[in-house]
Amino acid sequence: MKKNKGFTPDWTNTAPKPGTFRSIFKWGSPEGFKHPNRRLYETLKEKFGMGDEDFQTKGFEGNETVTCDTPVRLKPEQISRFKEIVGENNISSSDYDRLRYSTGKTVEEAMKLRQGIPCEVNDLVVHPRNKDDVREIVSYCNTEKIPVTVYGGGSSVTMGLRCVKGGITMAMNTHMNRVLSFNETNQTITVEPGIMGPAYESILNNAPEKLGAEHRYTGGHFPQSFEYSSVGGWIVTLGSGQASSYYGDMYDIVLSQEYITPAGSFKTLDFPGTATGPKVNDIMKGSEGTFGVLVSATLKIFRYMPENRRRFAFIFPTWEGAVNASREITQGEFGMPAVFRISDPEETDMALKMYGIEGTPINSIISYRGYNPMRRCLCIGSAEGEKSFTRNVKKKIKKICRKYGAMYITGYPVKNWEHGRYIDPYIREDLNDFGIMIDTLEAGVTWDNLHRLHQRVREFIKSRPGTVCMTHASHFYPQGTNLYFIFIARMNDIHEYRKFQEGIIDRIEKSGGSLSHHHGVGKMVSPWLERHLGKEQMDVLKALKKHFDPHNIMNPGGTLGFDLEENEKKN
Amino acid sequence: MKKNKGFTPDWTNTAPKPGTFRSIFKWGSPEGFKHPNRRLYETLKEKFGMGDEDFQTKGFEGNETVTCDTPVRLKPEQISRFKEIVGENNISSSDYDRLRYSTGKTVEEAMKLRQGIPCEVNDLVVHPRNKDDVREIVSYCNTEKIPVTVYGGGSSVTMGLRCVKGGITMAMNTHMNRVLSFNETNQTITVEPGIMGPAYESILNNAPEKLGAEHRYTGGHFPQSFEYSSVGGWIVTLGSGQASSYYGDMYDIVLSQEYITPAGSFKTLDFPGTATGPKVNDIMKGSEGTFGVLVSATLKIFRYMPENRRRFAFIFPTWEGAVNASREITQGEFGMPAVFRISDPEETDMALKMYGIEGTPINSIISYRGYNPMRRCLCIGSAEGEKSFTRNVKKKIKKICRKYGAMYITGYPVKNWEHGRYIDPYIREDLNDFGIMIDTLEAGVTWDNLHRLHQRVREFIKSRPGTVCMTHASHFYPQGTNLYFIFIARMNDIHEYRKFQEGIIDRIEKSGGSLSHHHGVGKMVSPWLERHLGKEQMDVLKALKKHFDPHNIMNPGGTLGFDLEENEKKN
Repeated sequence: MKKNKGFTPDWTNTAPKPGTFRSIFKWGSPEGFKHPNRRLYETLKEKFGMGDEDFQTKGFEGNETVTCDTPVRLKPEQISRFKEIVGENNISSSDYDRLRYSTGKTVEEAMKLRQGIPCEVNDLVVHPRNKDDVREIVSYCNTEKIPVTVYGGGSSVTMGLRCVKGGITMAMNTHMNRVLSFNETNQTITVEPGIMGPAYESILNNAPEKLGAEHRYTGGHFPQSFEYSSVGGWIVTLGSGQASSYYGDMYDIVLSQEYITPAGSFKTLDFPGTATGPKVNDIMKGSEGTFGVLVSATLKIFRYMPENRRRFAFIFPTWEGAVNASREITQGEFGMPAVFRISDPEETDMALKMYGIEGTPINSIISYRGYNPMRRCLCIGSAEGEKSFTRNVKKKIKKICRKYGAMYITGYPVKNWEHGRYIDPYIREDLNDFGIMIDTLEAGVTWDNLHRLHQRVREFIKSRPGTVCMTHASHFYPQGTNLYFIFIARMNDIHEYRKFQEGIIDRIEKSGGSLSHHHGVGKMVSPWLERHLGKEQMDVLKALKKHFDPHNIMNPGGTLGFDLEENEKKN
Repeated sequence: MKKNKGFTPDWTNTAPKPGTFRSIFKWGSPEGFKHPNRRLYETLKEKFGMGDEDFQTKGFEGNETVTCDTPVRLKPEQISRFKEIVGENNISSSDYDRLRYSTGKTVEEAMKLRQGIPCEVNDLVVHPRNKDDVREIVSYCNTEKIPVTVYGGGSSVTMGLRCVKGGITMAMNTHMNRVLSFNETNQTITVEPGIMGPAYESILNNAPEKLGAEHRYTGGHFPQSFEYSSVGGWIVTLGSGQASSYYGDMYDIVLSQEYITPAGSFKTLDFPGTATGPKVNDIMKGSEGTFGVLVSATLKIFRYMPENRRRFAFIFPTWEGAVNASREITQGEFGMPAVFRISDPEETDMALKMYGIEGTPINSIISYRGYNPMRRCLCIGSAEGEKSFTRNVKKKIKKICRKYGAMYITGYPVKNWEHGRYIDPYIREDLNDFGIMIDTLEAGVTWDNLHRLHQRVREFIKSRPGTVCMTHASHFYPQGTNLYFIFIARMNDIHEYRKFQEGIIDRIEKSGGSLSHHHGVGKMVSPWLERHLGKEQMDVLKALKKHFDPHNIMNPGGTLGFDLEENEKKN
């Protein structure tokens, strides 16, 4: 019996033409797509009061060829000098390259590029081949006062790549993407910063074949941007992966680093424990390209034992129950799960659709048992590590979740989530094509402030009629977690979007959330940074900035708030 | 049947007279003593070629009343100002107090005080009552350019308290030793820095009674100085406790801090995870009083479940076996043991005497089984946490140790060690009374350099005839560990001692050890710091120093190497 599936929008299913704006803002692989399934499509129409007729014609698609009106502001002799340093093939001042390497993955950038409005661009893209090139480039730029922005994988969602003051963009993932050394005794690997997530993880997973190792390893770092972000980017923006509750975040994982700064070059020592004063290795983490250029990093690696992974999922009767269970789990001293994620009622509602639970017998059972829609909360996760360790972690988690009234719903939803986790971002283009904006903001939070932050941010987002707000917590510590807000609305206007986004950031900060848990600061949340940290702490960061980069050539124009005017700051 | 025990030296068994030099340098409680047992006494005579006749007469005992020739260099109006700020009862310029608060627990200081040679002293001891006092004091000292040294528990073994430039010493443990707040939801506690180890741990262990908590907690930090060191001291010197392999070191444990510096005051935010640029909270850790004064700290705490502790001890056939097993354990992904300690053959030999194993059936069995003296190595430890977690950790450790040929010798030696661990330092006075020097130096090390560092440092120490060198590793990471060298020699002369000590530090640094794993830098190893970190990293620390303390009033005179002349540095 064939079901009548009704109208399906003409979701774009072909790669953007090379050279177009769309080829820049589109997420991920040019050939990668994830279209809303029927359930999600019906939901979108319902939530936003839209009908099939609203999905007949696409809005701005950005299919035009890139042109860029901003003249190259470097002098010919300066360009010649860069050519001398890296070779002719390793510089480019084409409109397309200039724009591409100045663009990250924010909604604002995508909205602009759809309309053919280029963002602030660099004057030249330079592809250093090795750290000697980097040293010469930084030295020359410092002398000539040419701004330098560093490009890793290009997945910044904080305007980290925007070249407010022009200058050059240094693309690290073109050549500087090699493994420099591997030390199985110390369980470390040293890489150049431009190595991308999949290449990095694949080398480690296949260490016996690729590195002559005895065992297989994992980097333990799986941000949603995994496929399109670089190890260097993870480090300088303080990234945190989906398994960070067990493996730690980048701040924990990076043992030592080598930097080239206008003030000189250095490599920190790789002792796992040391009491020799403030740790310069850690001072550099989170510097977002404003202190200097990361040219190599030594990272902790972990035994790769996927055969020991134990998956679990639960439905909680309420959000309060899910939060209380999570807190008890993370404070339980039996080891942490790797992936752990609790979704609030609105996200749960959507997730049951997206992870293939709605419409299955599981869904009937949970509804029958009284786990009611818009109150019930989904929890998914997995434990990694040694076999008995993961068995015990899962056992304890089950026990605690049951105590809070949760029902175990197998590991099936986790498998679905694992399968979809890097694909979900592709959905953005389809929604945007029909004027639906989807975006995220996130914050670190202590346990005692979680509900307040959640309620107050939701309150703001939901105060705009017809706006979806889904929230989850996905990075856990005994002292707290993060809240990740996904908001979806029918919204096309850049100014309206910006005002809305600013309102959310402001509400997060005022409600006691950190300005970012793992996206970083960039030029997007930096106007709030001084209010957030206080002037005295900003002054500490500024003192470091002044030391490393006295001429403010490194990622200038607002990153980390170093060179904002008073009127550009939020008070 | 009464055994003839032979001659026993007249070990000092009475508290030093108040006001004497001895009352300053003696470790711990005035009434606390631990005398060498018979086995150790016989060993000492044998090792150092001494006879009973050498233990008839004590050398310098430091029983003279303290006098101090250094005039008070503060002006009367300055002293009046301090009196105004903290009240008359909270300042002192007596010779005794000036010396006491300028003295730590190094061998050099003890040697000098035994001979009545005062170290470099402050001009006034000030006891702030609260952070407002601290703010006024720092502000006034900054205006008047009066040096400020901060005193926590007084257990520094790095000359951290030596007042090279005079000025005031601020004693934090007199009044500023309170619990400020307790947050069971977040599992954190906020304390003033002067709270001492036992008070801190006792409040946490008795949290239901003392803080109205639901559970009992532990701070998880047990340095050997535990009884006579302060929480603030632990933080600013980057301390590491004997259970750090599980609970982490102070760098890991401190969530946020409040500082008063010449450049202003601030309190860092207490998010457990955040991506808002370089972390000022961490920048302050290890600053050893050179940036400003710590006035409160929020620390992570842990569930206290001593009923789940599982102890274990092993004898390994060789040091190589013990090291390899340790590495496999720490890289095993089943959770870390809390206490874990492997002793090299020379320390094992001594430990079997001291921990009551030599002369017991266990000793006969291990010798019979071919674990030969001066090759065999002792391993002791315990697992803490949730019940099934500790069971699994111990099980895995047993399995790995057996694989490397080790024999399980019950948890008995660990209990003995636990009982003696805070008492052992008392033995120093007895040895020193008869001209035997005992001291320690320690280093962080990566696994791949452990044997080289061990061999080369031993080689240097043992090149001096009649010198005992015992080594253990006691803080473990998947990437490496520490080496803790204990050296004992018949040595009275301060200059000979200093030359010997310098030689060891130099050898540690040149052999690829970190300059300190957990003692800190102070004014003792600071001459090597620039060589160790490199000029570029020292310049980063100096930039911070200049920002926080432009007039160099905070712990000046060599701490962290900030104000050393070129000829004072080791190249």
